[in-house]
Amino acid sequence: MKRNVLIIGAGGVAQVVAHKCAQHNDKLGELHIASRTKAKCEAVIASVHAKGAMKVPGVFAAHAVDATDSAAVAALIRETGCQIVINVGSSFVNMTVLEACIETGAAYMDTAIHEDPAKICETPPWYGNYEWQRRDRCKAAGVTAILGIGFDPGVVNAWARVAEGMMDSITSIDIVDINAGSHGKWFATNFDPEINFREFTGTVYSWQNGGWQSNTMFEVGQVWTLPVVGDQKAYLTGHDEVHSLSARYKDADVRFWMGFGDHYINVFTVLKNLGLLSEKPVKTAEGLEVVPLKVVKAVLPDPASLAPNYTGKTCIGDVVKGVKDGKPVEVLIYNVADHKEAYEEVGSQGISYTAGVPPVVAALLIADGTWDVGTMVNVEDLDPKPFINLLNTMGLPSRIKDAEGDRLLTF
Amino acid sequence: MKRNVLIIGAGGVAQVVAHKCAQHNDKLGELHIASRTKAKCEAVIASVHAKGAMKVPGVFAAHAVDATDSAAVAALIRETGCQIVINVGSSFVNMTVLEACIETGAAYMDTAIHEDPAKICETPPWYGNYEWQRRDRCKAAGVTAILGIGFDPGVVNAWARVAEGMMDSITSIDIVDINAGSHGKWFATNFDPEINFREFTGTVYSWQNGGWQSNTMFEVGQVWTLPVVGDQKAYLTGHDEVHSLSARYKDADVRFWMGFGDHYINVFTVLKNLGLLSEKPVKTAEGLEVVPLKVVKAVLPDPASLAPNYTGKTCIGDVVKGVKDGKPVEVLIYNVADHKEAYEEVGSQGISYTAGVPPVVAALLIADGTWDVGTMVNVEDLDPKPFINLLNTMGLPSRIKDAEGDRLLTF
Repeated sequence: MKRNVLIIGAGGVAQVVAHKCAQHNDKLGELHIASRTKAKCEAVIASVHAKGAMKVPGVFAAHAVDATDSAAVAALIRETGCQIVINVGSSFVNMTVLEACIETGAAYMDTAIHEDPAKICETPPWYGNYEWQRRDRCKAAGVTAILGIGFDPGVVNAWARVAEGMMDSITSIDIVDINAGSHGKWFATNFDPEINFREFTGTVYSWQNGGWQSNTMFEVGQVWTLPVVGDQKAYLTGHDEVHSLSARYKDADVRFWMGFGDHYINVFTVLKNLGLLSEKPVKTAEGLEVVPLKVVKAVLPDPASLAPNYTGKTCIGDVVKGVKDGKPVEVLIYNVADHKEAYEEVGSQGISYTAGVPPVVAALLIADGTWDVGTMVNVEDLDPKPFINLLNTMGLPSRIKDAEGDRLLTF
Repeated sequence: MKRNVLIIGAGGVAQVVAHKCAQHNDKLGELHIASRTKAKCEAVIASVHAKGAMKVPGVFAAHAVDATDSAAVAALIRETGCQIVINVGSSFVNMTVLEACIETGAAYMDTAIHEDPAKICETPPWYGNYEWQRRDRCKAAGVTAILGIGFDPGVVNAWARVAEGMMDSITSIDIVDINAGSHGKWFATNFDPEINFREFTGTVYSWQNGGWQSNTMFEVGQVWTLPVVGDQKAYLTGHDEVHSLSARYKDADVRFWMGFGDHYINVFTVLKNLGLLSEKPVKTAEGLEVVPLKVVKAVLPDPASLAPNYTGKTCIGDVVKGVKDGKPVEVLIYNVADHKEAYEEVGSQGISYTAGVPPVVAALLIADGTWDVGTMVNVEDLDPKPFINLLNTMGLPSRIKDAEGDRLLTF
């Protein structure tokens, strides 16, 4: 039994986490939110109260913290008495927040792999570079650390584990992420442009034929036919979950596919080829040192500003192939989310919604002990059933489509 | 009779001017070159000596000057005893250099309209905003100031004057500028990206039906069939010479067309729509104030670096229509230049070459008194014949194509 939640970060995903925590504060206890800018946290809390989202009267307090400072985060954990930390700040702060959890014994969650701002696409498996090096220390300290518990990574890892239970062996896991929504801007990224573009500028790693395969972004594309969103072109993309799932399913091919329209690819290609996505500083003729990528971020729309006008749906699914009783089997497990519904419920668009709900579900499972495992895990290491059942009731129903039809996935 | 030339600027065009002045230093006297960075001037002079371009032994000296400081430029003019100033620095320094010429009595030339760095595309006629406001003072001081004596503006203005002499009245002047060359880079601008993009981000002004017509860039396109380069798509573009020619030929339509490939237009459109061509500062998440356009300039190839590998040809022409003896007539006057030949002769690509040769021809005509008119003029105000004859011998032959065929234009 753990209680009281500290949310790190105050962006679009943090907004969803805050609303969902508030909707379940009877089980989670006191709520706290901290980021570098306290005013951003206060705005999130104000939006929670504006929606009347607090299930029962209780604390929801804002704090300023520099999350790159482990000691400051640890002090805040102690001061607030939080036993559960949901880190949805920048991926650059993951390790300092995790260290604070190891020091204080609080449970840790994040939704994306740790990144060093100075490096792009390190060698695989990416979890091995930072997170897994701290696994033994989590175990020794009895600290529950659930890595990558957003949607992808996160729910898609749990689905792989469900599929594992349905087959004798898995031969391939293809995770397909399609955003068929429209934000109405000429161009925008759906989350922090700096993180968004970094995902696509490095080597694309996939796990195939028992080893890492390297490609470049937009080199390998394929049209996928999915429920609701229909035929969608998606491209082989490097993604967190490939790096943990390939460790568990060594004999399977593990690939991640992200949908992109031609317009996105064109803008990305122009910016990349000109050198404007570089994180290395350039010097202007006037002698000013500046990182091009940070200027691109500065001119693009703030992803949070997209939510009010976002329409359409997302579809994220696992296409898992394997063998059952000597015969080939295939299953699609998926979710469809709606941007407008998400905005109406929690004030964020669908992509933030799908990333922000799962860690709150996990927080509830840690609070009641189900997932309070006292060590560092990726999501596929945990029993997926209680997680999927609770997701079904909290806005992100899982559906399954196989030879027997298309139906709600429930246990 | 005027002697001794001061070149302001040390870029690609200045390089051409330096070489061509050296080739005629028997008539021009001492040569001087000045820019903010003295080392750049020294590099230009070194390239002149490396080619053995000095016709007779003589002075060619480098100087550092801040050309935005009129007094400093005037002091340099006095110190060097230069009576002819060829200003091929940034368009931002035109008025301060002109003021220095008015103060010292030196003849002034430039190749592009003055620009205020804080403004893009002021109201037409552009010459009326800065240059022509100083016409009376030039006249009073007996200062010869030839505005826009590059290729376009410059040679194309002289061609319009030639066509004027061949017709009873002119009904339209279409100036078409095609670069059919290839620099081999994924993307680059042929001259300073800051100036290049500024040309295309504002309103496109053309003179039609006796008034200014406004369009946006790439809104009006047309395929032109030209000698050597063949069919080329060009777009209605705002350009200096439209602003002076429309004053002389009020009853004619005066338009400027620049050739662009789809790739250039795509890159330009992406950068413009994202806000990366803005001259207004943005603030990064880290609080750094930076002008996006200056960052774009910093990541693009230095135009001077393109020269060694530039291949192919440029074709610039005036399509002039009018009436002669009651019948419609049409003439094309044009030049074809070769990037590689330009580089071999003077170490610059063809676009710098076409811009840099004409002011040196004009300097020779000022030196021998032919064009030393003692007032401010645009090129169409001057007798074009000696200019075109001399251009024919100095690397930029004019050709004429009309009902009588295609031949060298000479007088």
